[in-house]
Amino acid sequence: MKHYTSIQDIPDIYAWIDEAKKIKENPLKNKKLGKHKTLGLLFFNSSLRTRLSTQKAALNLGMHTIVMNVSEDAWGIEFEDGSIMNGTTAEHIKEAAAVVSQYCDIIAVRAFPTLKDKEKDEREQVLNAFIKHASVPIVNMESATSHPLQGLTDAITIAENSTKKRPKVVLTWAPHVKALPHAVANSFVEAMQKMDVDFVITNPEGYNLNPNITKDTPIIHNQKEAFKNADFVYAKNWSSYDSYGQILKKDADWMVTKANIGNAKFMHCLPVRRNVVVEDAVLDSENSLVIQQANNRTFAAQLVLKKILEDL
Amino acid sequence: MKHYTSIQDIPDIYAWIDEAKKIKENPLKNKKLGKHKTLGLLFFNSSLRTRLSTQKAALNLGMHTIVMNVSEDAWGIEFEDGSIMNGTTAEHIKEAAAVVSQYCDIIAVRAFPTLKDKEKDEREQVLNAFIKHASVPIVNMESATSHPLQGLTDAITIAENSTKKRPKVVLTWAPHVKALPHAVANSFVEAMQKMDVDFVITNPEGYNLNPNITKDTPIIHNQKEAFKNADFVYAKNWSSYDSYGQILKKDADWMVTKANIGNAKFMHCLPVRRNVVVEDAVLDSENSLVIQQANNRTFAAQLVLKKILEDL
Amino acid sequence: MKHYTSIQDIPDIYAWIDEAKKIKENPLKNKKLGKHKTLGLLFFNSSLRTRLSTQKAALNLGMHTIVMNVSEDAWGIEFEDGSIMNGTTAEHIKEAAAVVSQYCDIIAVRAFPTLKDKEKDEREQVLNAFIKHASVPIVNMESATSHPLQGLTDAITIAENSTKKRPKVVLTWAPHVKALPHAVANSFVEAMQKMDVDFVITNPEGYNLNPNITKDTPIIHNQKEAFKNADFVYAKNWSSYDSYGQILKKDADWMVTKANIGNAKFMHCLPVRRNVVVEDAVLDSENSLVIQQANNRTFAAQLVLKKILEDL
Repeated sequence: MKHYTSIQDIPDIYAWIDEAKKIKENPLKNKKLGKHKTLGLLFFNSSLRTRLSTQKAALNLGMHTIVMNVSEDAWGIEFEDGSIMNGTTAEHIKEAAAVVSQYCDIIAVRAFPTLKDKEKDEREQVLNAFIKHASVPIVNMESATSHPLQGLTDAITIAENSTKKRPKVVLTWAPHVKALPHAVANSFVEAMQKMDVDFVITNPEGYNLNPNITKDTPIIHNQKEAFKNADFVYAKNWSSYDSYGQILKKDADWMVTKANIGNAKFMHCLPVRRNVVVEDAVLDSENSLVIQQANNRTFAAQLVLKKILEDL
Repeated sequence: MKHYTSIQDIPDIYAWIDEAKKIKENPLKNKKLGKHKTLGLLFFNSSLRTRLSTQKAALNLGMHTIVMNVSEDAWGIEFEDGSIMNGTTAEHIKEAAAVVSQYCDIIAVRAFPTLKDKEKDEREQVLNAFIKHASVPIVNMESATSHPLQGLTDAITIAENSTKKRPKVVLTWAPHVKALPHAVANSFVEAMQKMDVDFVITNPEGYNLNPNITKDTPIIHNQKEAFKNADFVYAKNWSSYDSYGQILKKDADWMVTKANIGNAKFMHCLPVRRNVVVEDAVLDSENSLVIQQANNRTFAAQLVLKKILEDL
Repeated sequence: MKHYTSIQDIPDIYAWIDEAKKIKENPLKNKKLGKHKTLGLLFFNSSLRTRLSTQKAALNLGMHTIVMNVSEDAWGIEFEDGSIMNGTTAEHIKEAAAVVSQYCDIIAVRAFPTLKDKEKDEREQVLNAFIKHASVPIVNMESATSHPLQGLTDAITIAENSTKKRPKVVLTWAPHVKALPHAVANSFVEAMQKMDVDFVITNPEGYNLNPNITKDTPIIHNQKEAFKNADFVYAKNWSSYDSYGQILKKDADWMVTKANIGNAKFMHCLPVRRNVVVEDAVLDSENSLVIQQANNRTFAAQLVLKKILEDL
C-alpha cells in the first residue's frame, strides 16, 4: 500500500480485520519490520488517542517516531498555489511536505476541516497537498472529511463483538455544544457499507451527511424507530452538512440513554461529552465498547503501518 | 510496587537510598528491564527537571517514552462525576485514564493544585482519578499535595552528603513573588520523618504546613534560631496553608544568605529565584547541593520505575 | 570537538564536506556510536527543519533524543547575572544549563536574537550562557548571530552541485514582510570565505551585514550586476544591521525571479515566502536546490554530532 487516506483504500475489510486481530494477539511479532524507519506525526489539531496509539503502533513495529505540533512548533503553512506569501503563512506546503519526506519514511497527518468553506474542506486541501508534494507514504490521522484509522478500528470492534451473522448497526447523531466535523461519521458509514451488516443512520432533519457518502444507506429521522432491535449503536455528533458547519439543534432529546438504547452495545470514537452525547449510565455499563474501541486504535494503526512498510 | 504516589509508599527509606546509590553507580545495569514497555508522561503543568529526568530514567531502563502536554496537545479534561459536559471540558478522566492505560505500561502524571479550593486539592482530584480509572501503575510527578520523586531525591542527597550519624536538617520557608504549592515541602517533611535526622521546620507565623503532615516535627518561627548548628538547610517557598493559597509576606528577611546559613549545605528543588529565595553567594558556593539534587532526580525516578516494572 | 557554535569551528571545510558526503551515502554506518547517549534539543523558538533533521541525525547515530520547547514546556529563564528574580523569569540559566547537562550528553540549543538590542545579540547571551554553565558539549541550532548547521549544509550542497573548479556564488538580500535575523547570512558568508569560490554579496544600501563578518568579501548594491555569470544564487532576507533590526525596504524589485537569476542554481535555507523572496517559477524549476539543501541538514548535523561523540 502507498497511502492510507480513506476507508476506500481497504480492498477486503474482512481480511484486514483478521490481520488486525492477529496483530492484537501478538503486537510485537513484527517488531523488526520498522527498524531504522521513522514515522513523522504532524498535528495541525489536538489529539490524544490518535497521538498515543499511532506512536504505540510505530514502536511495536520497531520504528522511531518524531512528533510535531505544526502550528506551535514550526511555521504557519500556506496551501494555496501561486499565492504571494506576504501574510501570516511563512512556509508553503510544497516545501514543507518535500522537506519532511526527507527526514521521515512515513508521514502521518491530522488536519481538521474549516467547517466554513465546504468546497475547500471537500477537496481535502491539507491531506491532498501532502500526498501531492511529499515523496513518502501519507497516513490520514483525521482529515477534513474522513478518519479512516477510526473507521477501521470501528470495523474491528464490531467484528470482535458480533454475536450474529448480520448484526444491526445504527449510527446516530447526538447533540453537542460545538460544531463538529463529519470525518468520523463519514468513515464509519464507509466501513459499514463494506461489511455484511444491517446498517442504518438516524439523525434529525437537516443533519443528513453528504449523500455521496451515505449513498443508499437508509436514513431515518426517528431515533426511536432506528434503535429498534439494534445490536450496536454508534453515537456521534456532527454539524449540519447542508447548512454547512451550522448547529441547528442542541437539545437533549437525541442524547443516547439507557432507556432508548436498550441492550445494544454502545460505541463512540471519544472524546465524548458525558450527559450531553450519552448519559453516564450507558458509558458506565458493560454494554459500552468505547474503551475497547480506543484500544483497537493501536492495532488499526499498526496494520496500516505494516502494510505500508511492507511495500516501501 | 503498584503505584508511587507518596513518600508513604516507601517501606524502608534506607534500603531505597542504598538501591538508588547502586543505580547511580551503574545506571544501565537494568537496561533490559523495560524492554518493549512504554512510559507515558502526562503534564498538566510546566516541567523541566521532572520532564527530563523521568524520561532519562525510563531510557536507562530500556523503556519507550511518550510525552504529552495534556492541556495543549489534547482536550480539556473533566474530573467531576456526573457532570453535564456542556462547558469547556471535552473528555472525562474516566475515559482518558482508561484509554491511556491501553497505550502505556506505566503512566506518570503532573498536576498542580488550584491553591484556591483546599478541599479539592487535598482530595487529590487528578492523581486519584488516574489511580481510580487507569488500569496501569501511576507515578506521581508532583500532585496537588506531594512530590514524592523530589522527596526521595532529597533523602538520597542528604544521605550522600552526611558526615554525621544524625545530622541537623532545617526546612526553611523563603520569600517568593508567587503563590506556590506545598507539595515539595510536604514530601520533604515526610522523607525527613522517615530518616534518622534532627529535623526542624522554620517558617513565619501563618505559614505552618498542614499539621497532619508536620505532626510532631518542631516548627520554629525564628529562622536564626532554627539555623543554629544546621548541617543542611532546605529552602522552599509555599503559600499559606491556613489562609489557603494566600501570600502573607514577601519581604527579604527570610531569604537564605551566606550570613545566616553559615557552613550548612544548601538544598532546593529548583527552579529557584536567585536573590529572592536565596542569594547568589549561597547558590554559587561549594555548599550548594542543588545541582547534585537535580542529578539524583534521575536515579530516584529510575528506582521507582524499576520497582514498578519488577512487579508488572 | 567540544562545542559546535560557529562555522569557525570547522578546521578544514573540504575534509568535512567529504566526510558528510560519506555519511549521506551510508547514514547508518555509525549507528552504534551514540548508543546510550542522549541528545537534548532545547527550542526557545520555532523550528521545522532543524527540529526534525537534528533528531533524525541523532537517531541515525543510535542516540536517544529529548525535545523541549523551553518557553512552553518549562520556566522563563533568566540570563542576567546578579539579578533579583522577582519578575517573570523563574529559573536562572546557571541552574538550567547545569541541570540539563546531567540528563543529556549533548545539548543543542536554538535561541533567536532580540533584533532590538544589538549589543546583547552580539554577545550571544543564550548560547554563551549554555557554553559557560553546561558541563556537556553545546550545538548551535541557530543563535542570535549564526546558524552554523545551515552554513555547513550550504557548503555541502554547493560542493555537490559544482560543475566548475571555482564557481561564482552570490548571496543576495531579498524582500520580506518581517524583520529577520542575520544568522543564516552570516554563517553562509563564513562558509563561503572558507571555500575556493568566487563569492560576492549583493544587497540594497543600508543592508550591509556586520563588516567583521563580511571582511573583504565584495558587496555590490546592484543585484543585476552581481548576478552576472552566477553559478549559485543564495537568497535570504535580513533586517538592517546598521539600523539594527529595522526594515528599510519591502518592495519586490529585489525578489529573485527566473528573469534575473538566469541559469544559476537557486538556494535558500527555508522556510521561504513564495512570490515575496523568490517567485514560484524559480522554486519550481530544476535549478532549485532548496529541497536538497534541507536534506543535507541531516548529514551536516550527523557529522557534527559524530565529531562530538568521538571526543566525548
